[in-house]
Amino acid sequence: QRKPPKLQFAALLLHSFAMFAFSLLCAKIIGELLKLNDDPKVSGVYLHLPPASLTSRVINTLYPEKDVDCITDMNMGRLVQGNLSRGFVPPLAGAVLSLLQKHGQFLLDVVSLFISTFVLRGFNSRAARSILMLCMFCLPQVMHADALVLLGAESMEIPSTWVRPGAAIIRCESILKSVIAQVSFSTLNFSCFSALFVHWLCLRSVFLNITVQCNNKSCSLSDIEISRAQTPKPIDQLAAEIGLLPEELEPYGRSKAKVRLSLLDRLHSQPDGKYILVAGITPTPLGEGKSTVTIGLVQAMSAHLKLNSFACLRQPSQGPTFGVKGGAAGGGYAQVIPMEEFNLHLTGDIHAITAANNLVAAAIDARMLHEATQSDKALFNRLVPSVNGVRKFSPIQISRLQGLGIHKTDPASLTPQEVSAFARLDLDPSKITWHRVVDTNDRFLRKITVGQASTEKGQTRETGFDIAVASEIMAILALSDNLGDMRGRLGRMVVGTSRSGKPVTAEDLGVSGAVAVLMKDAIKPTLMQTLEGTPVFVHAGPFANIAHGNSSVLADKLALKLVGQDGFVVTEAGFGADIGMEKFFNIKCRASGLKPNVVVLVATVRALKMHGGGPNVSAGAPLPREYIDENLSLVARGCRSNLRKQIQIAKLFGVPVVVALNAFRTDTPAEIDLVCQIAKECGASDAVSCQHWSQGGRGCLELALAVKEAARQPTNFQFLYNTEMPIVEKIRTIAQKVYGADDIEVSPEVQRKIDYYNHQGYGSLPICMAKTHLSLSHMPDKKGAPTGFVLPIRDIRASVGAGFIYPLVGTMSTMPGLPTRPCFYDIDIDPVTEDIIGLF
Amino acid sequence: QRKPPKLQFAALLLHSFAMFAFSLLCAKIIGELLKLNDDPKVSGVYLHLPPASLTSRVINTLYPEKDVDCITDMNMGRLVQGNLSRGFVPPLAGAVLSLLQKHGQFLLDVVSLFISTFVLRGFNSRAARSILMLCMFCLPQVMHADALVLLGAESMEIPSTWVRPGAAIIRCESILKSVIAQVSFSTLNFSCFSALFVHWLCLRSVFLNITVQCNNKSCSLSDIEISRAQTPKPIDQLAAEIGLLPEELEPYGRSKAKVRLSLLDRLHSQPDGKYILVAGITPTPLGEGKSTVTIGLVQAMSAHLKLNSFACLRQPSQGPTFGVKGGAAGGGYAQVIPMEEFNLHLTGDIHAITAANNLVAAAIDARMLHEATQSDKALFNRLVPSVNGVRKFSPIQISRLQGLGIHKTDPASLTPQEVSAFARLDLDPSKITWHRVVDTNDRFLRKITVGQASTEKGQTRETGFDIAVASEIMAILALSDNLGDMRGRLGRMVVGTSRSGKPVTAEDLGVSGAVAVLMKDAIKPTLMQTLEGTPVFVHAGPFANIAHGNSSVLADKLALKLVGQDGFVVTEAGFGADIGMEKFFNIKCRASGLKPNVVVLVATVRALKMHGGGPNVSAGAPLPREYIDENLSLVARGCRSNLRKQIQIAKLFGVPVVVALNAFRTDTPAEIDLVCQIAKECGASDAVSCQHWSQGGRGCLELALAVKEAARQPTNFQFLYNTEMPIVEKIRTIAQKVYGADDIEVSPEVQRKIDYYNHQGYGSLPICMAKTHLSLSHMPDKKGAPTGFVLPIRDIRASVGAGFIYPLVGTMSTMPGLPTRPCFYDIDIDPVTEDIIGLF
Repeated sequence: QRKPPKLQFAALLLHSFAMFAFSLLCAKIIGELLKLNDDPKVSGVYLHLPPASLTSRVINTLYPEKDVDCITDMNMGRLVQGNLSRGFVPPLAGAVLSLLQKHGQFLLDVVSLFISTFVLRGFNSRAARSILMLCMFCLPQVMHADALVLLGAESMEIPSTWVRPGAAIIRCESILKSVIAQVSFSTLNFSCFSALFVHWLCLRSVFLNITVQCNNKSCSLSDIEISRAQTPKPIDQLAAEIGLLPEELEPYGRSKAKVRLSLLDRLHSQPDGKYILVAGITPTPLGEGKSTVTIGLVQAMSAHLKLNSFACLRQPSQGPTFGVKGGAAGGGYAQVIPMEEFNLHLTGDIHAITAANNLVAAAIDARMLHEATQSDKALFNRLVPSVNGVRKFSPIQISRLQGLGIHKTDPASLTPQEVSAFARLDLDPSKITWHRVVDTNDRFLRKITVGQASTEKGQTRETGFDIAVASEIMAILALSDNLGDMRGRLGRMVVGTSRSGKPVTAEDLGVSGAVAVLMKDAIKPTLMQTLEGTPVFVHAGPFANIAHGNSSVLADKLALKLVGQDGFVVTEAGFGADIGMEKFFNIKCRASGLKPNVVVLVATVRALKMHGGGPNVSAGAPLPREYIDENLSLVARGCRSNLRKQIQIAKLFGVPVVVALNAFRTDTPAEIDLVCQIAKECGASDAVSCQHWSQGGRGCLELALAVKEAARQPTNFQFLYNTEMPIVEKIRTIAQKVYGADDIEVSPEVQRKIDYYNHQGYGSLPICMAKTHLSLSHMPDKKGAPTGFVLPIRDIRASVGAGFIYPLVGTMSTMPGLPTRPCFYDIDIDPVTEDIIGLF
Repeated sequence: QRKPPKLQFAALLLHSFAMFAFSLLCAKIIGELLKLNDDPKVSGVYLHLPPASLTSRVINTLYPEKDVDCITDMNMGRLVQGNLSRGFVPPLAGAVLSLLQKHGQFLLDVVSLFISTFVLRGFNSRAARSILMLCMFCLPQVMHADALVLLGAESMEIPSTWVRPGAAIIRCESILKSVIAQVSFSTLNFSCFSALFVHWLCLRSVFLNITVQCNNKSCSLSDIEISRAQTPKPIDQLAAEIGLLPEELEPYGRSKAKVRLSLLDRLHSQPDGKYILVAGITPTPLGEGKSTVTIGLVQAMSAHLKLNSFACLRQPSQGPTFGVKGGAAGGGYAQVIPMEEFNLHLTGDIHAITAANNLVAAAIDARMLHEATQSDKALFNRLVPSVNGVRKFSPIQISRLQGLGIHKTDPASLTPQEVSAFARLDLDPSKITWHRVVDTNDRFLRKITVGQASTEKGQTRETGFDIAVASEIMAILALSDNLGDMRGRLGRMVVGTSRSGKPVTAEDLGVSGAVAVLMKDAIKPTLMQTLEGTPVFVHAGPFANIAHGNSSVLADKLALKLVGQDGFVVTEAGFGADIGMEKFFNIKCRASGLKPNVVVLVATVRALKMHGGGPNVSAGAPLPREYIDENLSLVARGCRSNLRKQIQIAKLFGVPVVVALNAFRTDTPAEIDLVCQIAKECGASDAVSCQHWSQGGRGCLELALAVKEAARQPTNFQFLYNTEMPIVEKIRTIAQKVYGADDIEVSPEVQRKIDYYNHQGYGSLPICMAKTHLSLSHMPDKKGAPTGFVLPIRDIRASVGAGFIYPLVGTMSTMPGLPTRPCFYDIDIDPVTEDIIGLF
């Protein structure tokens, strides 16, 4: 309908690539093409490339709208259909078309073959075919032509059946001269022919002006620089590579997309791939690098071993992104890209959780206010209003009625007692357990008083905000199996207790349907890619403190189907193996029914030294010598305490362990060998070192082979406890078998709560321990593998919707704070290039 | 790399469409195809349709991956390239290929022409061509064939040049028999030929099983039902239709996309279209329907008058969506679709604003805590830490230093006074004006006390939450001209005052860069479509109470370029013309430099009756007879008071007015005529009634013509005041000329604040009145056009980043509440179909 604006041309001259391998060359070209595609200053691209590099993939990377030569599949198809209204018409074909329009049939006979033979021989075959397509529609006429002009194709053989008997065949060198000199038709218009060549020459001169140079970049770059140096492949291309159908993909921009759950139905009969968990030794301030190992491992498997593989990661909270440095996209040459998309809004799942969580909170307080200020009758009349003279319950109200044991559907038939029971949730303000959330490190919201405006009529109460990832809705998202399962769990969330001691749920509040609507897109995992172009699901990121700290069941299930029988899915558990892995097995695998094949246990020489008795480290101060110089005795002690214990924990569940030593530059060969040797003595199937940070997938090849080998072993996966055991016994089992405690200590208050949970029917939920991650015990400064302690259970709570009981061992902060100089000081955006500055 | 799963086929048999107009037929077919595209249970679609309906648009709607026939442009192009690895190979061509592979050259000669002639005549031309493409590569061999088999093409003429002299031409009726009976080559394998037909028949039987019926749906549907009944066209198709290039689009799912601002550069020399503002008379509980008129008007212009047009709308807050019924997507047959996407997360802009706003809030409180607990020296050392032995200021800190008049870059060179001035913002806790926000109607957050946890060391203070759309960041988003402009405004936002009385900005907090990073995607407008497939920008939705209540400058600018000189952009202002329109002219147009061509003033007979003295209306109670029966005297009084005044206000700015009477079923012809007649008497260029709610664009045709006519008039647009006037004078001008007040009353406290603003250099900002929208005066119950009142200015505040001063006339609530029965009671999601239930 509207005219395109005037076009500017740029061209891509890629040369002197002889030193690169062919595939690398193609990858480079594709990278440059992606940039040209996205550059609003470039309206068209003419590919003047070595013919061998013009692969289908290279050519079809180009937007059809920028394909000056008309050689992409889409443009070729349009040309065949005679649909020349979109995209470019190839220059030669365009000239022919305008000639045809002006001079009709007679000239056509000559020109059409003139063009087709010219391009058939003179150009690469794609360009030739694109023009041949055009000519094909004139082919019958060509066959009746009186003369054929063959240009630049001296030795070409013309099948005799292609020309009319007796037609003149004219061969010539110089295009323009020959046409004029040897063929003289009265209708031939010189200016038209020259237009053809002017068009052509014009284009040539433009592409000679612009040369894109590909320099081999240096390697000492920050994470964001490495991320940005690599143009991610278009997300629909990645999706096609891993076997997704277009209708299963919902792109969010160019580099991320949600994947629809219908995929699970389509692939339900496909056998699952191997399921690999990456866990770590007990964390220290020196770090282990679980995320980078996860990404390095899939890069090694997919990009180097040519095995189908998928990484499943948690979505990071934006709080820490702007607080204390540290993202979850991996780092160095083992990253998810673009890392700024990964670390910022992503596809809005955490925002949806925030909105959903806070809608429940608003519903609680508003309901308490309305109940406090209205009679039973008035409340009931407002809750079940007469619309056009008809009163009826909404489905969610009928669900509440049934929960109350009232099996009626006519509002008029309720007794006054039933009206009261229905209309009053009678929440005890001191027993509301539901908090509001924000995805910001806002410590001043840890404890607040709400309802102080006069409009709230004095109904103030103390409450608090948690960080959004600590919301029960996040834990539900991570554990849900499908939309219906999530909807059910959201309805079962307990928000508080009534004055008569009954749990009040989101379903009772009437808000659970709306919450599910807010979460309808969040339930679809987000597809991204690693630096080496292998697929990654990012989905859910529940707090590993008071929740189970693992990415979603759904992402793992989808990935296991997508990789197929011989493929690998690598997923990561938060914190050390005593917390994240234990919860992965006992909670996540119990919910999903999936059985893991291998545990990869990540360790570093530095962290092992600390577990072996190395000195404390403080941020900002120089690292003590012990961590920089070789110290085999510290390493050995660390391995024989913490590493051994964590290996034993994994083997408790019947799963083989491969130890991945994330090597640093300061690690000596003797230290590395020692770790690997002791790890194997302690029961690891294998132990290898990895250099993925500096080398990407190549640096994880040995690990990938070790994992592949370990995955061949038969597994004997088993849960640590039966959920039908009493709550206290389940806690004791974890404390003794996993943490190495002598026993647990349960206060009368905790016992009272346990009795209440049993009474409410929550007794058979699994246990989600809320314990410090800094020690196997409850004492953060006890490194190594402490023994001889009794684990005190200070409090106990229930996430009924998510489906677990969480005993608290010590105080868990659910809202981080900002330091004096948060890292937002360094973060900014370049208003011209739109590049983000200072994000890691 | 991975094998596609087994395919199931569905087919589309659309017949008995004779009663439909052709374009309607195509639209219906496209709608059905879009559903089949998206249906994961359908793996392939065979189009058995009347040839005339197989337009390029119909065919290319189909995903190439589901194109069984291989007739989409993309698949045709792949076929031409011999790239058969993706998508379907057409069944006939597939059979030929397998024959060729098995039987080589000799058979090829026969088969290739056998196929090409068969399809050339037997099928529609697209299918024929797709196979012809394949055969073309064997064409020379065909020409040498010894025999030609012509099937189902008895009367076909074969050009003599196409066949070898002496070749046998075999014509036959029954395919299989003929081939076997009349041609006997020793290499011919019966099973291969039958494979061809089995393949073919198999397909036939499948598509006969599934018949998609298109029923003409009845018209009494809810908004969400109407929205869902229409499958939106793919957003990239809409984008191509309006002239966007692929690199300018960032799709978010199938039906919405962000548009990159580089478009403005590309089209900078394109002349703007006409700029139409939709405003309303003073709102009453009976409603006017500004949004539906806006959408109906563009539907009429684009879909019926074939004029390029664009609607620019505000993004609705999620608060009201779940609170009291009412969306902003329009309604009936004048809607933005899909309405659930429009009303829920959209593309996350409001979530980004929430995150950005709350990061500033967290930074404020954390900074106050750190300042209260550290010495100047300690603060400075933490703010400017030594990294690898080097201390340096970050760019944002240098910006603060320069603001303080300290032109140094070496941290060591600062004097102790300068260190203190730099490190201490010294915010006065009682003068923090920055609020936190949520996009939820959470009344209990109106006034709260924060910092009550022991970790915050007693630094409690009273503050509150606003609804997210009331954030200054939302107002900034709406007024920004580009990324750099937004970044600058975000830095200038004043969050509070220091103890020494200086304004403290987001730049001083060091957080404005991070805020800009959070807003980097939000600055791009979101493209959606109306029910009739015309383009809509949804962008920004600042509160019309304490901000200017208009959608974004950027969306309007982009739309004006996209529609081009003869096109129309229709944008909408919040509340009545006295508020939304006045702010549109004096604030938005001043910021953008754009000049409006026409104001459309929306009124309803009912609302005019209330302004004419009709009785009050209460929610739930039956409507008084006055509003249902004809009552010309009330109508006349309403027109001569409120309508006349609002027309006069628009004409104050020199812009022609068209009155759009949003007609209801109960309006009588006499009432409608009376409104139109009086409107014209009062100075309206034209006045017409509209039936867009029930009829869509067709119901707004008369309005579209009137607007087109009015836009031809020369305009004499002028601002109401010069910003260099003193603040009090600017307020007085608005009060007298727009509201009809006798004068204003300024308290000493307000005057003191005005003096402070003048001192800080904010004196020349425009004025954004915060006044009730329910009356032209400050008294909500004074309907019509009140006179003889003095407007009291109760308070005055500044949004320095957004760039306006806002005087408060009465108390403005910035956080709505939930009623006893919020509409979330009716909202749920069907876990199987994923359809949303009860959202309007």
